[in-house]
Amino acid sequence: MKLPAIAFTLGLLAASGAFAVEGKWTPEQVLEHDPQWLRKLGLEIPPQKLWTKDGAGLLEAAVRIDGCSAGFISAQGLMITNHHCAFSILQQHSTPERDLITHGFLARTPAEELPGSGVRATLPHRLTDVTREVEAAVPAGADDLARFRAIERKQKEMVAECEKAEHHRCQVAAFDGGLRYVLVDSLELPDVRLVYAPPRAVGDYGGEIDNWSWPRHVGDFALLRVYTGPDGKPAPKGDANVPYRPRHFFPVAPRGIEPDGFVMVAGYPGLTFRSYTEAEMRERAELFYPRRAELYRAWIDLMEAASKRDDAVRIALADRIKGLANNEKNSRGQVAGIRRGKILEKKTASEKEILAWAAKRPEQKEAVAAHDELARLIAERRATWDRDFLLNQMKSGPKPLDLALTLARWAGEKAKPDLERDPDYQERNRERLAERLERDQKRLDPPTEAALLTDVLARFAALPEASRVPAVESLLGGARDRAAIRPRADDLLAHTKVTDLAERKRMFEESEAQLRARHDPLLDLAFALDRELRALKEREDRFLGAVSRLRPRWQRAVIAHAGKPVAPDANGTLRVSFARVRGYAPRDGVWMTPQTTVGGVVEKNTGEEPFAAPAELLAAAPKAPASRWADPKLKDVPVDFLADADTTGGNSGSPVVNGRGELVGVNFDRVWENVANDFGYNPDVARNISVDVRYMLWLMEALHGKAAEPLLREMGITPPKPASAGASSPER
Amino acid sequence: MKLPAIAFTLGLLAASGAFAVEGKWTPEQVLEHDPQWLRKLGLEIPPQKLWTKDGAGLLEAAVRIDGCSAGFISAQGLMITNHHCAFSILQQHSTPERDLITHGFLARTPAEELPGSGVRATLPHRLTDVTREVEAAVPAGADDLARFRAIERKQKEMVAECEKAEHHRCQVAAFDGGLRYVLVDSLELPDVRLVYAPPRAVGDYGGEIDNWSWPRHVGDFALLRVYTGPDGKPAPKGDANVPYRPRHFFPVAPRGIEPDGFVMVAGYPGLTFRSYTEAEMRERAELFYPRRAELYRAWIDLMEAASKRDDAVRIALADRIKGLANNEKNSRGQVAGIRRGKILEKKTASEKEILAWAAKRPEQKEAVAAHDELARLIAERRATWDRDFLLNQMKSGPKPLDLALTLARWAGEKAKPDLERDPDYQERNRERLAERLERDQKRLDPPTEAALLTDVLARFAALPEASRVPAVESLLGGARDRAAIRPRADDLLAHTKVTDLAERKRMFEESEAQLRARHDPLLDLAFALDRELRALKEREDRFLGAVSRLRPRWQRAVIAHAGKPVAPDANGTLRVSFARVRGYAPRDGVWMTPQTTVGGVVEKNTGEEPFAAPAELLAAAPKAPASRWADPKLKDVPVDFLADADTTGGNSGSPVVNGRGELVGVNFDRVWENVANDFGYNPDVARNISVDVRYMLWLMEALHGKAAEPLLREMGITPPKPASAGASSPER
Repeated sequence: MKLPAIAFTLGLLAASGAFAVEGKWTPEQVLEHDPQWLRKLGLEIPPQKLWTKDGAGLLEAAVRIDGCSAGFISAQGLMITNHHCAFSILQQHSTPERDLITHGFLARTPAEELPGSGVRATLPHRLTDVTREVEAAVPAGADDLARFRAIERKQKEMVAECEKAEHHRCQVAAFDGGLRYVLVDSLELPDVRLVYAPPRAVGDYGGEIDNWSWPRHVGDFALLRVYTGPDGKPAPKGDANVPYRPRHFFPVAPRGIEPDGFVMVAGYPGLTFRSYTEAEMRERAELFYPRRAELYRAWIDLMEAASKRDDAVRIALADRIKGLANNEKNSRGQVAGIRRGKILEKKTASEKEILAWAAKRPEQKEAVAAHDELARLIAERRATWDRDFLLNQMKSGPKPLDLALTLARWAGEKAKPDLERDPDYQERNRERLAERLERDQKRLDPPTEAALLTDVLARFAALPEASRVPAVESLLGGARDRAAIRPRADDLLAHTKVTDLAERKRMFEESEAQLRARHDPLLDLAFALDRELRALKEREDRFLGAVSRLRPRWQRAVIAHAGKPVAPDANGTLRVSFARVRGYAPRDGVWMTPQTTVGGVVEKNTGEEPFAAPAELLAAAPKAPASRWADPKLKDVPVDFLADADTTGGNSGSPVVNGRGELVGVNFDRVWENVANDFGYNPDVARNISVDVRYMLWLMEALHGKAAEPLLREMGITPPKPASAGASSPER
Repeated sequence: MKLPAIAFTLGLLAASGAFAVEGKWTPEQVLEHDPQWLRKLGLEIPPQKLWTKDGAGLLEAAVRIDGCSAGFISAQGLMITNHHCAFSILQQHSTPERDLITHGFLARTPAEELPGSGVRATLPHRLTDVTREVEAAVPAGADDLARFRAIERKQKEMVAECEKAEHHRCQVAAFDGGLRYVLVDSLELPDVRLVYAPPRAVGDYGGEIDNWSWPRHVGDFALLRVYTGPDGKPAPKGDANVPYRPRHFFPVAPRGIEPDGFVMVAGYPGLTFRSYTEAEMRERAELFYPRRAELYRAWIDLMEAASKRDDAVRIALADRIKGLANNEKNSRGQVAGIRRGKILEKKTASEKEILAWAAKRPEQKEAVAAHDELARLIAERRATWDRDFLLNQMKSGPKPLDLALTLARWAGEKAKPDLERDPDYQERNRERLAERLERDQKRLDPPTEAALLTDVLARFAALPEASRVPAVESLLGGARDRAAIRPRADDLLAHTKVTDLAERKRMFEESEAQLRARHDPLLDLAFALDRELRALKEREDRFLGAVSRLRPRWQRAVIAHAGKPVAPDANGTLRVSFARVRGYAPRDGVWMTPQTTVGGVVEKNTGEEPFAAPAELLAAAPKAPASRWADPKLKDVPVDFLADADTTGGNSGSPVVNGRGELVGVNFDRVWENVANDFGYNPDVARNISVDVRYMLWLMEALHGKAAEPLLREMGITPPKPASAGASSPER
């Protein structure tokens, strides 16, 4: 122990609750915090180094790649992210003969780096508050639907204007339902290359079994490099390109981090719901999540039964099952976590307090009225909740229906001017849509689709009479039970051409009139359901219009009542969370210690997927405790660690840095008990999980030796002094 | 924290390995230890208070009840043990109208206490070293079989002589395979009454699911009282009896125990194998346990499939399944634990060291020879290992075969003079045998028995030709596969009268000739198999004779090499283990904290068995943190705790006492990672589990209020000062 025992003990006490900091702070909010307080937390550099009023600083080094986060770690555009975030590049370059997924990849020289098609690095460039402009776009006297549409249109216009500049990708981000709107203007760099990925047995060690849990022993990291044109500007991939030179990067801290150590997690968290009112949260906790868990479980059971019968089917359905299973487990976790964290009870109590506070302040009258109106709107939505839920979910079930619905919608949307379209169907997404429609061909399994379609139709048939969908009713001809519905589903699938790839490609190019003239029964059903979806969307848009009117009024009261900075809900924009490395108690009698070790990788290894570490790793593991990357207290090389950072989906690949802004790890997951974090921060279990940077360094050195030296040098790591050869005698 | 932080931290360091004390010490060995060392461990009273050379002391207060341990906790013969050890009394007195199993029991006055038929308290009375007498009984020039029989006969004679005194129960206990023989003369007190048992939902909270694991939240305790005749001497149960006045008892320590606190566990551990040589251990680890796990799993699967089809079958088979499952899980645990603790590797290394040490000492030549001869004998046994295993295990499978084998053996044995019989079939056990043969009637399920018998016969049929059993071969008439064997099993069961209770009772009284004259096909098979068992027993007796000759020679070298007291293997005699309250790491990244709480009981509660705590407990739980039994650091009432005591089966119900000899808990289990403890002590995971005495006190007070006061007073607990009524306002 470095510190005297008393200080250490006090440190522990201080860490055990008083410290936990809720909040995914916007970069500007870093400057709103008391610098003394930040210093006390553990920030050793001035807050102005992280961000300035002019919108630049170290936090810029946290970038976005597709749905993930990443961080620059060298002046030459080297970037760290998760293995699972770089997976698509590995997949693109893998062949049966050269299986990079299985064996991993190391570029010994820049020339060997592998370009990733479709992988883009998105760098924050300029943030502009456009709240006034957005609000001004709403015509006087507009109802909530008109309000929604006006705002949406204005956002599209601003994005279109912003994206006129080449290689700019823009977004108008709403904060807390419309309290603020910010135009996020980002640079998009399409030349991103794979530099290093560990073998899958390291990068995905533990696989689905360990997913969302602790203890973890996964090396879920990869290194990428961003390239620009020779002029330093974004450019399509090309041989003349040069490494991007970021203004800032997080230098690697080879000493890593210790329990109780201060860390910051910077990245692009996707979506949270903490500004929801009690009524909205209750709908999620008591209706949405339990129902989604039930629905997905039913579909997974159907798919898994089919997968067991046939290996080809197993492969075809694998990623659909994985996606559903992830959401199903998440839904159950939300229900359990909301209960465990007493999140609804806390929300009820805090709303009560704010309402009582507001009641005494005439200027808050509008806030109280907004709160009550929101609750009333939520209550109204319950009448058609079951049907609306089914309409919203059906695309995740039978794939042919999903394809038909996409085709139907695309035909309708592409006939409109681009700015009037559903954003997912704007011209900028044409290529992505076409790609997906093609890729999905290998995800089809006819018997499973029939079973799934039967399930969906049976659920429609079971709706209360007032909620039934006419198109489905006429298709079913009065059939109510599954046995009677099944032949109808079979018939539908026997006569559709949607499941034929060549036909589908043609359909993608056809107009709505052409598609309708085909009299394809599944397309016909899709057009009818699409009409329902549009009507539903209109109701939802109207509701969202109301939310954009009401939530800001209420949220202003919430912030005024707090009297200090309140972090807005995550919305895909750059955020930073302040945290400490800490274990937690998942239940009475158990304490999760905050670090795992290479010894633990070996202990968990069964030799069977997903616990089949590479032989080279297992051979090197006994020497890990004596390596320069070993932690003196753990007496082994650390692998993963826990901290109480406030993260969510989208934070995958987030750089984790110490108080000096140096890289100590890369975030990749949360613990299972922390899933409901999206609704409220529970300091007892709010733990994110990161790969320790020392595991990366040890692994690259142990597995690749000299071949990894250039890359390690780029990260500031020089080779160790040569050890005296043959010093240890072999054991017998 | 009571201690300054530095001292506390040092204490933790000291506890983290240096302390762990292997050894189930005999009472006399307590006096062989350095008193200074015992003091340093935490023993606050002089060792002579625990035991004296004359064989008396506080440890006497640890007594034996049937297969369990128990401890006196008042001067009036009040005794604490486990709920599961007192279960049979609850069962005897339960009726559908008065379901004591479900609701528990509290005797408000001594008159209400419930006598337990068949429950006997066995108190150590006198221990005499009889090694010389036993060895002298072996005739000069006897071979190993003659040696075994001479020793066995001598033991029986000594037991018979000892038991001539009324209410004495005696045993000649062999220590470390014959290094020492001790005549244990105990008083047997047959009047044992139930004083208190919690509801089953407390006493068996967590049930099979939590069995062998941590964290635990079970109140596995019960209170009994031992009675004697009015003269203070053992007497059959009777109204004139008076409470037994023990010479010593463990007063209750209402302050309980803290992490790092010193505890002693006193009791009657059954059987361990640490003095086994490497060859013997390897046979267990690599052959016996893996095979037993496989065999029992197959039988459990058959029984569980039948149980699912029918509720009556489920009830009939429940305790057979439970027994097999317990052993099956144990077998798997042994295999895993021996691997985890590297117990074989350590044994190999230590034998190597001792052999090298002995090689340099001419006086140890005999020890080395003994070691080598043992290894050779073990190797020889492998030739018939499979058949011998099956013969030894078959009684645990099909119940009709078990009954028939018992009848066949009994008929043969009862014709012999008592002293020449198989000890289990001596006259003193006649009643127990008859009871069991009757009780087993409700454990029969004909279709399951047919399936189990088929399985056993099929396993015999699959033995290598040289190993086959003639009687089974002629029964099967060449059938080898299960389909062909099944009709033979059905036929056997259709024509036997062994499964008829009235017939079986008659059979129990009949001679071998009468039984054979019945030409009952199952009895005929049993007689043939019994002949095999007798031949096997002769081979085993010969082996044990050799062991009694060889192991002491080797063990003397082991002890001389250690140069300090070495605790002998457990053999059902009184032992004490010195320990500390400590958590443990079951795997990398997880730490089991050493205490659980009432809050944890509530957290675990699902309302479904076995996690359905009584409503009164759940209602009282929120007030537990404010009760006088709450632990100041835990801020709640502790429920169970871990310590690194060296325990095994038979230690159930062992009193757990602090350094002053005061009761702080009652031992009831070990953790799963510690199952292989019987072969070697692994300080990292050697943890026993006890109920905290404060849980008992809180529970009795919270659930029974005034009704529990007399009993609590007897334990030295006076009622709390009355709290001001209505002080807290109800929460809304």
